[in-house]
Amino acid sequence: MNTIGNIFRLTSFGESHGPALGGVIDGLPAGELFSSQRINDMLARRAPGRSALTTQRREPDRVQFLSGLMGWDAEAGHAVPLTPEAETLVALGTPVGFMIPNSDQRSTDYDRLRHLYRPSHADYAWDCRYGIRDWRGGGRSSGRETISRVVAGAFAMQLLERKGVTIASRISSIGGIANPSPEQIEATVTAARADHDSVGGTVTCTVTGLPVGIGEPTFGKLQQMLAGAIMSIGAVKGFEYGMGFEGVEKRGSEVADSVVVDPDGTPTFPANHSGGIQGGISNGAPIVFRVAVKPTPTIAQPLHGLTDSGEEVEFTPHGRHDPCILLRVLPVVEAMAAITLADAWLMRHTGF
Amino acid sequence: MNTIGNIFRLTSFGESHGPALGGVIDGLPAGELFSSQRINDMLARRAPGRSALTTQRREPDRVQFLSGLMGWDAEAGHAVPLTPEAETLVALGTPVGFMIPNSDQRSTDYDRLRHLYRPSHADYAWDCRYGIRDWRGGGRSSGRETISRVVAGAFAMQLLERKGVTIASRISSIGGIANPSPEQIEATVTAARADHDSVGGTVTCTVTGLPVGIGEPTFGKLQQMLAGAIMSIGAVKGFEYGMGFEGVEKRGSEVADSVVVDPDGTPTFPANHSGGIQGGISNGAPIVFRVAVKPTPTIAQPLHGLTDSGEEVEFTPHGRHDPCILLRVLPVVEAMAAITLADAWLMRHTGF
Amino acid sequence: MNTIGNIFRLTSFGESHGPALGGVIDGLPAGELFSSQRINDMLARRAPGRSALTTQRREPDRVQFLSGLMGWDAEAGHAVPLTPEAETLVALGTPVGFMIPNSDQRSTDYDRLRHLYRPSHADYAWDCRYGIRDWRGGGRSSGRETISRVVAGAFAMQLLERKGVTIASRISSIGGIANPSPEQIEATVTAARADHDSVGGTVTCTVTGLPVGIGEPTFGKLQQMLAGAIMSIGAVKGFEYGMGFEGVEKRGSEVADSVVVDPDGTPTFPANHSGGIQGGISNGAPIVFRVAVKPTPTIAQPLHGLTDSGEEVEFTPHGRHDPCILLRVLPVVEAMAAITLADAWLMRHTGF
Amino acid sequence: MNTIGNIFRLTSFGESHGPALGGVIDGLPAGELFSSQRINDMLARRAPGRSALTTQRREPDRVQFLSGLMGWDAEAGHAVPLTPEAETLVALGTPVGFMIPNSDQRSTDYDRLRHLYRPSHADYAWDCRYGIRDWRGGGRSSGRETISRVVAGAFAMQLLERKGVTIASRISSIGGIANPSPEQIEATVTAARADHDSVGGTVTCTVTGLPVGIGEPTFGKLQQMLAGAIMSIGAVKGFEYGMGFEGVEKRGSEVADSVVVDPDGTPTFPANHSGGIQGGISNGAPIVFRVAVKPTPTIAQPLHGLTDSGEEVEFTPHGRHDPCILLRVLPVVEAMAAITLADAWLMRHTGF
Repeated sequence: MNTIGNIFRLTSFGESHGPALGGVIDGLPAGELFSSQRINDMLARRAPGRSALTTQRREPDRVQFLSGLMGWDAEAGHAVPLTPEAETLVALGTPVGFMIPNSDQRSTDYDRLRHLYRPSHADYAWDCRYGIRDWRGGGRSSGRETISRVVAGAFAMQLLERKGVTIASRISSIGGIANPSPEQIEATVTAARADHDSVGGTVTCTVTGLPVGIGEPTFGKLQQMLAGAIMSIGAVKGFEYGMGFEGVEKRGSEVADSVVVDPDGTPTFPANHSGGIQGGISNGAPIVFRVAVKPTPTIAQPLHGLTDSGEEVEFTPHGRHDPCILLRVLPVVEAMAAITLADAWLMRHTGF
Repeated sequence: MNTIGNIFRLTSFGESHGPALGGVIDGLPAGELFSSQRINDMLARRAPGRSALTTQRREPDRVQFLSGLMGWDAEAGHAVPLTPEAETLVALGTPVGFMIPNSDQRSTDYDRLRHLYRPSHADYAWDCRYGIRDWRGGGRSSGRETISRVVAGAFAMQLLERKGVTIASRISSIGGIANPSPEQIEATVTAARADHDSVGGTVTCTVTGLPVGIGEPTFGKLQQMLAGAIMSIGAVKGFEYGMGFEGVEKRGSEVADSVVVDPDGTPTFPANHSGGIQGGISNGAPIVFRVAVKPTPTIAQPLHGLTDSGEEVEFTPHGRHDPCILLRVLPVVEAMAAITLADAWLMRHTGF
Repeated sequence: MNTIGNIFRLTSFGESHGPALGGVIDGLPAGELFSSQRINDMLARRAPGRSALTTQRREPDRVQFLSGLMGWDAEAGHAVPLTPEAETLVALGTPVGFMIPNSDQRSTDYDRLRHLYRPSHADYAWDCRYGIRDWRGGGRSSGRETISRVVAGAFAMQLLERKGVTIASRISSIGGIANPSPEQIEATVTAARADHDSVGGTVTCTVTGLPVGIGEPTFGKLQQMLAGAIMSIGAVKGFEYGMGFEGVEKRGSEVADSVVVDPDGTPTFPANHSGGIQGGISNGAPIVFRVAVKPTPTIAQPLHGLTDSGEEVEFTPHGRHDPCILLRVLPVVEAMAAITLADAWLMRHTGF
Repeated sequence: MNTIGNIFRLTSFGESHGPALGGVIDGLPAGELFSSQRINDMLARRAPGRSALTTQRREPDRVQFLSGLMGWDAEAGHAVPLTPEAETLVALGTPVGFMIPNSDQRSTDYDRLRHLYRPSHADYAWDCRYGIRDWRGGGRSSGRETISRVVAGAFAMQLLERKGVTIASRISSIGGIANPSPEQIEATVTAARADHDSVGGTVTCTVTGLPVGIGEPTFGKLQQMLAGAIMSIGAVKGFEYGMGFEGVEKRGSEVADSVVVDPDGTPTFPANHSGGIQGGISNGAPIVFRVAVKPTPTIAQPLHGLTDSGEEVEFTPHGRHDPCILLRVLPVVEAMAAITLADAWLMRHTGF
């Protein structure tokens, strides 16, 4: 259960404080070119420490490719041996193994967590499930695991873009403020930090340019695959698309998706209550979905936890904490959407 | 893409107006006994025509078992050949093939739909995807497809119940009314029917008795599997669990899931903002999730659709229509939850 | 574990003396036409009682299609509702559910088998695995289960044929006679029957017309998928392709697959020691593989078995027994090859 | 198609001359301890250059673990951070990422292969399949890819051993000599090397201690899973088990697997014509299978190949070549058997 996707697949591995995180990407079409800069840019958006608004932990997060890619000599028009500096990568059609070493392994910071189950974390459930746990900073349940998703997503994104598909997400609410301005976002996060607290909100993601006909009608519905992929991000508490929770309270006559034929003959759906998907299949309209992202549970206030010998305990987390992960979750949401859509694209374009 | 699940699996088949719907259930543990009455009861809850509130189409929906089961002679304590009247079924550990014939195939009713793409339906996207379509009443995209899920869910439910797990769902809002009384539900539906319109709302589902430790930490998170399964139901537009969309707007300090140790030593989570799942794994608290169900798009009013030759067309659906599917969707939601949890249970209880 | 294939998939169900056998076929491309006669012809080749050489049990083995297909009006050029008499079937792109009722259920014949584990059968291992067993005539382990494979294979075969791929198998040895003539086959089987005994042998299957480039290089090697599919037939004890067991005893210089370029520029492999597959991928040469098929274990002689209470027992099977299944296994071998190649074809023809 | 297994799974990556080979192992039960020495020992058996009989290329083949494991402090009885020197590893229940850097990347050796399709290699089929190829020494099709399998197999083997299961393989024929003595093996290989040629043969593998009841009856038959896994090894041309190709030419009465009940009440199968598997399920007798391994195709003689511009070409490979891989293939065969059996074990031990 560490693999997602059918043809375009990511198999992920790694604990936050083990030797490395990484993964294996299957399904990159042979001969496709990829910009390594684009991958690093997307990783940089996920990385902490980029602004005053996020945690200060510095992680370089440089991905090392182990297989499946060669460099590309654009002038000569052929593949060359892979070097870490390669700007253009060419896919061999074989699995892309990659890793990101964990440079920041100050493990002694975590000794006090060894026997502690923090509230709202996986700690207690994990120990009941497995009986053993890498106690250092979340282990496999750390948000750091999403790095592998961003790497795979950066490949998927480039595939989709050359087909005219774009995926863009934004913070659509934070701490109760709808459609916040950058200033409001900054003010909300700063206030939460000052209070040793954290805030959550919602992310809205819009996919444009996806042609009609992507998705499967029964158990591979596009909304199902998107919802599953997005809900696999640890901090996500809800997913809705199109009319969503608000729209379903309306009457059928209010949310009918009337069709208008464009002058060029293309059917369009001006209201788009269906959010670009009908019967599990894209209808050519933009896909719009919204994601609920919880406030980070680790805050510098006294919390009520449990020891692994079964005793309640009060403790105050110290160290660097992120008062809000909304900004950093954007590339992760986009990556999971891209992985899902690249896979659905491949599933649709198979044939005799 | 007609299969859901890993060990407990349903492979579904059938169009609404073809010879039959049905499926294959894999993963029923050999020797387990099942009540056929329970299966029929769950099917009856999904069936239309049970009350004044739902469509009048009569579908007997009797499941016929083709394999994987024998009858059970409780006195003798051994299996006997299967008959349609068997009250108790015993699983052989082999795949359970089953079918439900489509008795109501008045296909000529549907001739006018042959070249029509109805708004808010799969018709247009389907034709772009496949180039061919069973035009009669939704075909594979019909809500009738959920019958197969209810059959599989009724088996899963019985497995879970004997482990102390219960799954119950209710209408938590309808047409904008939160936590409606039965009278309010009836009044809302009756009003919609009188207006030749339809209403939607939300369903809240609660799972109790699930032990701590079910679920996988990365790509098989319990909320991910539940969200995917539930979002595969055609009418569903959103899924949230625990604190959901509303809760994420709060601060971290407000939604911390403090632990209290029961007198008997069991850790409990009184606030349960996590909705019974932490890090993708059940924590022993009730699992609570909420589902957005859209108003049915087929209403007896003029609608704006498209012909398959690309022309806009106004038409008024006639025939029997369901002004609200909330009541009928309850057993489908429960079935998909049961299938997901039975599978997660089996995935967890595997070992050397 | 009742499903085979990735995109072209068969999910099989059914016991030999339950209500029906059947399956679900996924991956039939929408709009493809199929001859129902071809399916019945292939089933007829598998059926017993067709000649003096096989068992006399009469099974009509008429397949009933439940979904995924409509009839085809060739004159009008469009789909029509499905009837049992339809000569041409059109695939809707949805799963094809089908069943074959078990008409011959004289269950009382089998009462003496209820507590008996027959030698060389699955009975004992099955009971240890599942603790419960349909004792009537092999149950799920009966050779009758291969009917579902032949139905799926008959669809795959038609897909492949219109791409120029043919699959043909023949008896390449029987009871120690290599490349037997029809007369030798008949004489060998007749002699075995007269002796209340049975004979086995080998089947050679040749695939021509498969283009270069089908197959995956690592864990989806064409020989791996073929071997797995063929070895899933109960009576098969071995699989070899190309040079096979005999060829590997030679020196590398003797079995080098030198390339000759045809006048039209096509590389060919005259010796074809590789059996049409190199590195897991088809190279355009015919694929040739050989299959070892055991003599049927049920013979009308005293056999040494076991009761389910753990006692050795001598017994003589009575009833109708097949002294040789080589002829009947030919369509099953071809079907499994066709399913595998149709799937590999689809896996290869997926792309962005 | 770079993943094998259902619960115990290996996802493999790597080209022979890219940065590294490696993989991800899923399904190691949490808390299980493993000896790193055992893994290195098994890798050493696969490595070239260990004796005069194999190629002289030196590959250290040290595996680096990236995740899923911690060290184990046996005295303290708990996990400790992982170091490269750790003698005992403990599984966290999370995916084990690992890699083996390719130290020997003298790529210029391979320039002459860039446009050459060698006979009996994947080169030509690969290029037709993918249009791009890492030409250096086989790339993904190199036998070096089996390193990842040996790593995963070494874990599986340790799991099985503590259940009493042993897997042992031996050379059962070489260059036409059956059951060769070590001296005969050495003489045969030495003679082939002197002639600038190569030899193949067969490997017999025996599994003892596997309890009755492992395997699935239809599409997960134990012989099917074993055959598929073994045939995925590039050099393997055939697989047989139990009576095999030779036995099927006998009569049913000669190969009946009569049961004898041991004094302790255990049913045994003295003749074991079934090779330890009946109906796809283990019956408690030793599993015996035999594998055909081809002579290595790269020999220091003039060979007839093809250029990628379509011209026939004669060339003589130079460099280090292995005149026989039988010895080195033994740990790979054992590894694939172990992976298959560990997975089948886990599939069998799942339950409600």
